[in-house]
Formats: sequence, structure tokens, C-alpha cells
Amino acid sequence: MAPEPVYLDNNATTRCDPAVVEAMLPYFSEQFGNASSMHAFGAEVGGALARARKQLQALLGAEFDHEIVYTSGGTEADNMAILSALETQGERNEIVTSAVEHPAVLSLVAHLEKTGRAKVHIIGVDAKGRLDIEAYRKALGPKTAIVSIMWANNETGTIFPVEQLAQLAHQAGALFHTDAVQAVGKIPINMAESEIDMLSLSGHKLHGPKGIGALYARKGTRLRPLIRGGHQERGRRAGTENAPAIIGLGKAAELALEHMNDEQTRVAGLRDRLEKGLLQRIGNSFVTGDTENRLPNTANVAFEYIEGEAILLFMNREGIAASSGSACTSGSLEPSHVLRAMNVPYTAAHGAIRFSFSRENDETDVDRVLEAMPQIIDRLREMSPFWRERDKADAGFNPTYA
Amino acid sequence: MAPEPVYLDNNATTRCDPAVVEAMLPYFSEQFGNASSMHAFGAEVGGALARARKQLQALLGAEFDHEIVYTSGGTEADNMAILSALETQGERNEIVTSAVEHPAVLSLVAHLEKTGRAKVHIIGVDAKGRLDIEAYRKALGPKTAIVSIMWANNETGTIFPVEQLAQLAHQAGALFHTDAVQAVGKIPINMAESEIDMLSLSGHKLHGPKGIGALYARKGTRLRPLIRGGHQERGRRAGTENAPAIIGLGKAAELALEHMNDEQTRVAGLRDRLEKGLLQRIGNSFVTGDTENRLPNTANVAFEYIEGEAILLFMNREGIAASSGSACTSGSLEPSHVLRAMNVPYTAAHGAIRFSFSRENDETDVDRVLEAMPQIIDRLREMSPFWRERDKADAGFNPTYA
Repeated sequence: MAPEPVYLDNNATTRCDPAVVEAMLPYFSEQFGNASSMHAFGAEVGGALARARKQLQALLGAEFDHEIVYTSGGTEADNMAILSALETQGERNEIVTSAVEHPAVLSLVAHLEKTGRAKVHIIGVDAKGRLDIEAYRKALGPKTAIVSIMWANNETGTIFPVEQLAQLAHQAGALFHTDAVQAVGKIPINMAESEIDMLSLSGHKLHGPKGIGALYARKGTRLRPLIRGGHQERGRRAGTENAPAIIGLGKAAELALEHMNDEQTRVAGLRDRLEKGLLQRIGNSFVTGDTENRLPNTANVAFEYIEGEAILLFMNREGIAASSGSACTSGSLEPSHVLRAMNVPYTAAHGAIRFSFSRENDETDVDRVLEAMPQIIDRLREMSPFWRERDKADAGFNPTYA
Repeated sequence: MAPEPVYLDNNATTRCDPAVVEAMLPYFSEQFGNASSMHAFGAEVGGALARARKQLQALLGAEFDHEIVYTSGGTEADNMAILSALETQGERNEIVTSAVEHPAVLSLVAHLEKTGRAKVHIIGVDAKGRLDIEAYRKALGPKTAIVSIMWANNETGTIFPVEQLAQLAHQAGALFHTDAVQAVGKIPINMAESEIDMLSLSGHKLHGPKGIGALYARKGTRLRPLIRGGHQERGRRAGTENAPAIIGLGKAAELALEHMNDEQTRVAGLRDRLEKGLLQRIGNSFVTGDTENRLPNTANVAFEYIEGEAILLFMNREGIAASSGSACTSGSLEPSHVLRAMNVPYTAAHGAIRFSFSRENDETDVDRVLEAMPQIIDRLREMSPFWRERDKADAGFNPTYA
């Protein structure tokens, strides 16, 4: 019998917690009313939505529950924040962001630049994935409409100094938005005492349902709807409230808050044990990102001279799920834009694997990976021309990836 | 013991079919992978999504399954269609729509007009809610980028001649979009043999889940994403696929196709029985909309000289849920923009109630309403100054609503 699968791809998506599903269930076929309706079917749902909003507010440490605008997910929230700022910030038409953002930000700003709607400054990172603060300072100016810098990177887990960055943005009169899709639920967040104006989050990254997310927008932040129609979300996001998903996200937020200590200590311990074990067992491998300052759940390990996609296929045969780069760019044979921005050599960036844990993982999962990986890496290296000719590969001889 | 509630507000939202919930359930906590991931967790979901897409394709009678772009709902689909057309149609910057559209269209086009991004032609309707075809012809021209006219009206059920309208739009070189949120699942649709370029639909209007919808875009129609980021939906709509909801919508589409005959005959029979019974029992009442050409499930009955919201409250006490106007504009004391566009007198438009059926209703529901309504209307009329002085009210003496 095949052993239980090991899921270490929680930065791509998490298992919806059974307690979340249980919380959602009555709102599909029993209390199914439209929350905007006058009658009892609608009113019952309205109360549950209000409670769910409070649950999410607590996870964010937000001062007001109406600072939350529900969206269909993190991508919509990112798009809304940036497009709104371009509309509300008068003559300001510049965007400052980083080279390691999620495609939800980078694709949008590339489009805005291409169509002449914004000038975009993309700030680089160092070899550990840390933002170039000097370049960031220089990019800010009287034309900056908005800064969008992620709270934590999805591939390496590197945490950005968002409070400091927000302060600098404000000194330039710009709004500060953070894609916190990977941070919310994993590290403590206290928006009431933050400088950040807007923050994006996604339900399915914290054991909540897919298809729901939110844009936090501090009270007083002017917001333009991305999707117009009915008066839902105080006129900021139209469309019938996705009641089951909002209620599920509320429950997921409550659980994330309960498990925050576990995430900080036990999950980080599993991650560290995996990393240490892999580096001990497998040569020519190293951890990417800022190991001093990163999410407790994320390890990104580069195995030199082999292909990440091939590693994943072999891991898959052993029932282990992880990822190379973001799921949103998978299928591409280009190495991750994050590792490229960090100047990780091609011979290593191609073989980088992201292991992302959640509270549902345990030591058995770590042991399974530690047992399987050395053989997988050895076998792939035996087949790899880059491994055999690694001196040449290091010198830039790179016939395939050139 | 209170009797079972009667739900006749299916145009606001429907009960998620238990079979739909059952189809979704495994995709929350078992097969929960990110469909864009490389590993088995993702791949399993990919197959289910492909099947769900085929199910929706069948309901639409679409030639290709990739003509479907999943969105977070009907509102997003409407917004995407109209905004996309303004970007892809070159110098054309005019929009033609009707006065009785859903706010998802009317709010957006009002905003586009206000911000100078489009010139908008709003076509009126006659007393039966039928489009003024002559005015429509005249509004079309070499500057028309897109026409957006609903397939069926959400308040009266009136069906628009969308094929004819699409043909005329094409003669002017414009794209034709239809908000078919109320039509899909209720009347047969065959996109393979249609002139329509784009069509919006919503899951929760056909016993599917909330938070999911789709934009059908005929092969060859150029489409610009409203939400940018990852490569999902062939690069047309970014964001992690909402797998459970897409799978639920697929099942809902399959069920809707199975029940199409029932909807056409039995549900229409219930609706007719209710209407006939109400008019027999209650004077000074009439049916609004085009009774010759409307959805099988919708009855909109105006009870003169009283207030719709008050009627709904009294109905609610009897456990009967219906609606006055669209749920998306409820809470407003203005009479419905649809009935105003039809020139229904204020004294009647204020007292209009929409009864919208589904396959889950039966004769008992009709009997309950027929039993309760006469008393409710009588009582409210006893309290109504407009009823007592109805000659003056008819003559325009209207101190409150002026």
C-alpha cells in the first residue's frame, strides 16, 4: 500500500480545515438567502457575515471591521489596491514595487507601464532576497502614487520590513500597499498600530476556502471599486456576497489566531529540521533567502546542476508534494523570477525546491522527505550533463539554458 | 409550530442544490491542491475542473469549452465584458445598453460616462418592458464599441430579443454582450448557433454556489483581463482557480439541463396559478412586464396604493420570502428603476412584488401565498392614505413620494 502523501506545498494552497468546511456548510443549502435581501432568509445570513468579519478583523488586528473589503482572492485585492491608487492619487502616476512580487502585482504593473498608464520602478533585492533600501528611497518621489511591496515572499519566505517601507512611502506622500497573502495567518499582524494603508490576503493560503480574499484598507483611504454594480461592501466591491466563503474565511482566521504560537515554534522547528537534514545529506545544495528573517513555514533549497521540475516529478512518485517557483508560473521552464532577481546562479536556481509547511505537518513528513530526497538528487545528478561537467557549467557553459 | 417557510425569491439567489454541495465537498479538504501545481494534488483537481467546464459548456450549447472564462460572479463577468470591449474596439468608445439592466451594467456605464471613458446610450422600454427597437437602431453607429442588453429582466422576467439585437449590433460593427444571469438554467440556450459574442452568468442563480460565475466569450472575441496576475483561464482571468465552486457550478449546470422541461412547464404553471389567483382575490392589482414573452419562473405583481417594503415585512411574518426590486438595490425606498423605466405609475410601482420560483417550489407554496396575501394587502390598504384618497393620488397628489 502506498504511504500517506506528504503535502509540503502550503504556500500554493492549503487544505481547507474541516472546521472551516463545517462552518460553511449550513450556508449553502439551509441559510442560503441573499444577504442583501429584506426577508428572514437574507437577515440570518447578514448576522453570520458580521461575525465572520469580526473574526478576520481580529486576525489582522484592525481597528474597524469596515476596513475589510471582501474580494474573490488575493489577486483581485492586489489589482484593486494598485488601480484604485492610480485613480485617487491625482497627478501621481508612478508605482514602486519589487522584483520579487507575485505575478498578481508584476503582471498588472507591467501592463500599466506598457499601456502608458503608470511609470513603474522595480526595486531589486540582494543575494538573500532583501530589498535594496537605498534604491527604494531613491525611487520614491512626488509622483509616486503607490508602493506595493509584499510582506513575505512566497518562494523564499523572506520577510520585508514593511513598516519601515510604509513610513518612507508616507514621507513621499505615497500610499503603501502590501501583498500579505503569505504572511497573514503565519506571523502576527497588528494593523491598528501599523503604517500600512492597504493589505491583500487570500483565504485558501490559511486553511480557508478558495475564491475568497480581502483587501484591508485603512479607514480614510480613498478606494475606487474594481468591480462595479450593487451596493455590497459599502459600495466598494459589487456582487452578491459569497456568504459561505466569507464565513469560512472567518473561521479560518479564528483558527489561524489560535495556532499562531504553534506556527511560530513547532512549524518553524519542522522546517529547520528539514533544512538541516537536507544540507547534511546532500552536497552542492544550499538554502536561498534570508534565513534570519523569514516565514516560519518556508524553506527554499537549491540543489545544484539539476532541474527542479524533474525533482518534483520524482518526489511526486514518492507521494511528496512541493513546488519549484510559484504555482502561478508553473509549467514554465524558466527558473523562478524571484531567484533570478536574487542572482542565484542558473545552475542552482533551476534546481530550487520550495518546501512550505502548515500546522497540519508533523515530524513524519520531515522524515519521509529526508529519506527520499538523497536518492532522488543522486539519480538526477547521474543523468545530468551539468553535474558531470559542473566546472564548465559554473564558468557559464550552459547550452540549454542560455 | 411555524409552517415551513416559502421561498419565492429565486431571482435574488437560489438554494444550493444538495447534489451540488456533495459534488463540491471533496475539493475542500481532500482534493484540495492548487490546480496549477505540478504534483498529484494539483493534477487530480485539474481533471475535475475539465469535466466541470464540459458540463457548463453543455448547458450553454457552446461550441468550445475554452469559450468559458470563470469569474467570481455575474457582476465581474459584466464588468469584464464591457471594459474589455472598450480596450479592444479601437477608436470605438460608445456603449449601448437598456434602462432596465442590472446595476452591474448600469453602475459601471454611468461611471464610464462620468469619467469620460465612454459615451453611453441608454435605450428605453415600453409599458410592458419591451425594448424600443427603433431607438436601439438609431443608437448604433460606427462609434459603438459594445452593446450590453440583458437576456431576461431580473424583476419582470421579460425576455429581450437578443438574437435580433446582436444581429443589428454586428451590422454596426459592434460587439454584443448579454447579461444572461437570469436566463441561464431557466430557458434553453444554444450559443453555437447564436450571434451573441459574450454572455454573463452566475452560479448562485441556478442552484449553484455563490462566488462563481462565468463570461462566455465566443472563440475569436478579443478579451482583455479585468484581473491580472497568473496564467489561469488561458491568461484571461488571474487568480487560483476556485475549484470547489467551479465543480459545483458544473454540477448545477448538469442539473439545470436535466430540469429544463420541468422549468418550462411545471414551474411556469405554478407561476401562472399564483398570478391568476392573486388577481382574482385582490383588486387594484396587475401583472407588470411582457406576459407573452418572459421567464417561466417570474411574476411581478403591482398592488396599488401601498408600499412594497411593508408588504414584504408582512409576508415575512407569514414565512414567505419574495422581493421588491432587485436585492442589489434593496434598502432603497425609491421604486425599482425597471418599473420606472416602464412608466408604471408611482402608486403601483411602489407596491410591486416579485415572486420568483424555482424547481424546488410546489403547489403548497402557491396556496400559502394565495391564502396570506389578500389579508396583508387589505390591512396595508386600510392604513394607507393613498388608498383612502386614491383619486387624488392618481391625479398626482403625492406628498411623500414627490
